[in-house]
Amino acid sequence: MSSKYRRLAAQLQGQIEAGVWQPGDRLPSLRETARHSGLSLMTVLSAYQLLESQGWILARPQSGYRVAPRQHSPANAARPALHAAEAVDINAFIFNVLQAGQRPGKVAFGSAFPHPSLFPREQLARSLSRVARRLDPAHQLVLPPGCAELRRALARRYAARGMAVSPEEIVITSGALEALNLSLQALTRPGDWVVVEAPAFYGALQAIERLQLKALAVPVDPVQGLDLDALADALGRYPVKACWLMSHCQNPLGVSLDAPARARLLALLKEHGVPLVEDDVYAELYDGDQVPVPLRALDEGVLHCSSFSKTLATGLRLGWVAAGELAPAIQRLQLMSTLSTSAPMQLALADYLGGHHYDRHLHTLRRRLARRKGRFYQALCRQLPPEVRVHASRGGYFLWLSLPAGLDATVLYHRALAANITLAPGRMFAAGEQFRHCFRLNVSLPWNAASEAAVARLAVLTAELLAAR
Amino acid sequence: MSSKYRRLAAQLQGQIEAGVWQPGDRLPSLRETARHSGLSLMTVLSAYQLLESQGWILARPQSGYRVAPRQHSPANAARPALHAAEAVDINAFIFNVLQAGQRPGKVAFGSAFPHPSLFPREQLARSLSRVARRLDPAHQLVLPPGCAELRRALARRYAARGMAVSPEEIVITSGALEALNLSLQALTRPGDWVVVEAPAFYGALQAIERLQLKALAVPVDPVQGLDLDALADALGRYPVKACWLMSHCQNPLGVSLDAPARARLLALLKEHGVPLVEDDVYAELYDGDQVPVPLRALDEGVLHCSSFSKTLATGLRLGWVAAGELAPAIQRLQLMSTLSTSAPMQLALADYLGGHHYDRHLHTLRRRLARRKGRFYQALCRQLPPEVRVHASRGGYFLWLSLPAGLDATVLYHRALAANITLAPGRMFAAGEQFRHCFRLNVSLPWNAASEAAVARLAVLTAELLAAR
Repeated sequence: MSSKYRRLAAQLQGQIEAGVWQPGDRLPSLRETARHSGLSLMTVLSAYQLLESQGWILARPQSGYRVAPRQHSPANAARPALHAAEAVDINAFIFNVLQAGQRPGKVAFGSAFPHPSLFPREQLARSLSRVARRLDPAHQLVLPPGCAELRRALARRYAARGMAVSPEEIVITSGALEALNLSLQALTRPGDWVVVEAPAFYGALQAIERLQLKALAVPVDPVQGLDLDALADALGRYPVKACWLMSHCQNPLGVSLDAPARARLLALLKEHGVPLVEDDVYAELYDGDQVPVPLRALDEGVLHCSSFSKTLATGLRLGWVAAGELAPAIQRLQLMSTLSTSAPMQLALADYLGGHHYDRHLHTLRRRLARRKGRFYQALCRQLPPEVRVHASRGGYFLWLSLPAGLDATVLYHRALAANITLAPGRMFAAGEQFRHCFRLNVSLPWNAASEAAVARLAVLTAELLAAR
Repeated sequence: MSSKYRRLAAQLQGQIEAGVWQPGDRLPSLRETARHSGLSLMTVLSAYQLLESQGWILARPQSGYRVAPRQHSPANAARPALHAAEAVDINAFIFNVLQAGQRPGKVAFGSAFPHPSLFPREQLARSLSRVARRLDPAHQLVLPPGCAELRRALARRYAARGMAVSPEEIVITSGALEALNLSLQALTRPGDWVVVEAPAFYGALQAIERLQLKALAVPVDPVQGLDLDALADALGRYPVKACWLMSHCQNPLGVSLDAPARARLLALLKEHGVPLVEDDVYAELYDGDQVPVPLRALDEGVLHCSSFSKTLATGLRLGWVAAGELAPAIQRLQLMSTLSTSAPMQLALADYLGGHHYDRHLHTLRRRLARRKGRFYQALCRQLPPEVRVHASRGGYFLWLSLPAGLDATVLYHRALAANITLAPGRMFAAGEQFRHCFRLNVSLPWNAASEAAVARLAVLTAELLAAR
């Protein structure tokens, strides 16, 4: 018995060190452990007594064994949140940046999402509670294209903008990211050429990497938007199978295409027979009264992808694509990979959208975002060294900044991180190195002492970087 | 103005026909529509009045315009739920079968999930409500590997079975299907050889198609399980990069490997250095007191995939993989495709698992499934023509049946469907045609007048098929 009980004790100790059992947790009873491990009750008791004598666990009358307070698990305290590394590639770099930004206690200028304080938490929670109370087996559907209620609610929002999108061509996805992935996959085969923006949302670059496509990166100007001459050139010289872009509040630049540019863009794509995947996740975050017109409104062949991650809650993971004739193909691709997204969440969202709160929330959200953006823009322009360009843009919640050429914003990123400030270095937004001197700031944070201090600190760090040239 | 208001009216009529607006729905106000469409209030009013005169909508004092009752939209009533078709391939066939099984009013012998009446709806709803009430921005995490609380709860369940799985090697996925897809993707490159079972869960075949892998299908016997000699042969002759299988309650056969077979299987894989992806979604649905030992318990290198779809609710879309050293790689692949799964659902599940209800529920579920399976097994054996083999199996909720060779269960599938009975034809479970004479029945349905009548009807349909030989 001797070795068996020691082995069991070591196993349990390992679990406590690994955080499986936390201080105060009740361990399984002697009887349960005996049953599952196949060991005798006596062996299990010996193991528990050994752990008790070593201070790992405490015996409590009437309530079995509990894990003792923390002092005994230094191994756990010192362990990093994740073992990352291996070969360093763009994806690993992006992953590390996103992970770092998620740790608490940081001023999250690097975040991709609006500050959580801007989300209508209570109303969403009410919808979720309502749905939970009437969870119905008939609603436990698991197949694409997703819940009819939610697709209908989305079709109504399209209709309100004068767009003819039928519920039957909408496929609910795990965020816009899955919508984008499935759309590109439906349009291409490995090895195909795809047009993307430079700089681009890193998710598009990752999708291309994942699907083994070849990217033609067309430059985007912070003021003019997509370089249409370069696009025409690319379409003329390569057998492009799909084009992916954001015409409104482009990520990371924040720039939007004007009406003539939109018309020329669509004409160019039509001329070359190239289908368009429109990533329109910032559709609702416009600034002013001018409601932006998605490219999809001008051409029914456009695959229109969006989500609620930027307007309602980051963690819902609910997006969609209005896919027209490609909807059945996209559904089948989804069936092969994730099947569908959480049914209760879809129903909660349909409930919320039915309640007329969303438009009021969006109205407030837009006003608050515009105010915060204006505030940070001014502070950054005032405090950063004049050699640093802060590119103005309307709508959304990003600012794009560029250091003088030759400087590396990745260095700034690491120094800022050490000061508990995150930012999104330019390297994340292109396969090449051309944006290494740039970075993106999320300016949806509340303007308070912490964020004000963070701007000041960024100014100092930037000045140091410039001085060391 | 004339053409503008007619165009708007036609647009709205189209939306009503497409089901965007349903009978009784309130249309956007004149003012809202004018604002969004850029048309004048007068134009909008004319359009609404035209639609009213045609009987499409009704003006209601104080509450604006509503969609009139149905008589005016025959186009909508006649429209099928989905436009499927295009090139017929295995995936399209599977999709159609799953879709058909989801329509209400069917006796769902073809379903892949336990009957919804077996799920602990109220307790799950309570957890969801609890989580909704305390939805916290700090919990709106969106990155892999998923919520720490849920990963810890899973690690505890492993620990209770004597398995050393740390929370840090668990990645939460959108059902076991995503876990399986990500695992295969992490282990292979397009063109690689992968061992799968024949027959196999169609999700594995779809994953292989999606990842452009080459499948070596090793036969599974309804009594003995995986043919280990054939496996040895495959491993000896091909540069296999991964092996995917279910050692317990294999889908569709229901067979489980015994201890000597498990040992030989792992030894064979070790000898050839081939990593194993273990699909263990039926882990909890064993029959009797003998708790099955996952292959992962015998070899820490095994990637162990499972989910809650077969034990708690079909629509949660929450699964996981215990991925050992591959966890970081799998997280990065998830970051590229779906980012993560719904945070509130993850928290609700962690809440539920913390409440000690799960084991009690599983205990009851196992008993009920065994009882139902026994009942259907007897009824099928008694009523089906003796030429039809009903393969006995323990655990799970599937029965595998084979018609005499040469007969096509796909024909039976279509005839049964016409009688509102679904089943899963053998064609779904292999790339080849070798199981066309077989079919899988889900026997987790309650034994009542409807299911009893459905068994009798199946017996008649089968006899007719045999008689027509």
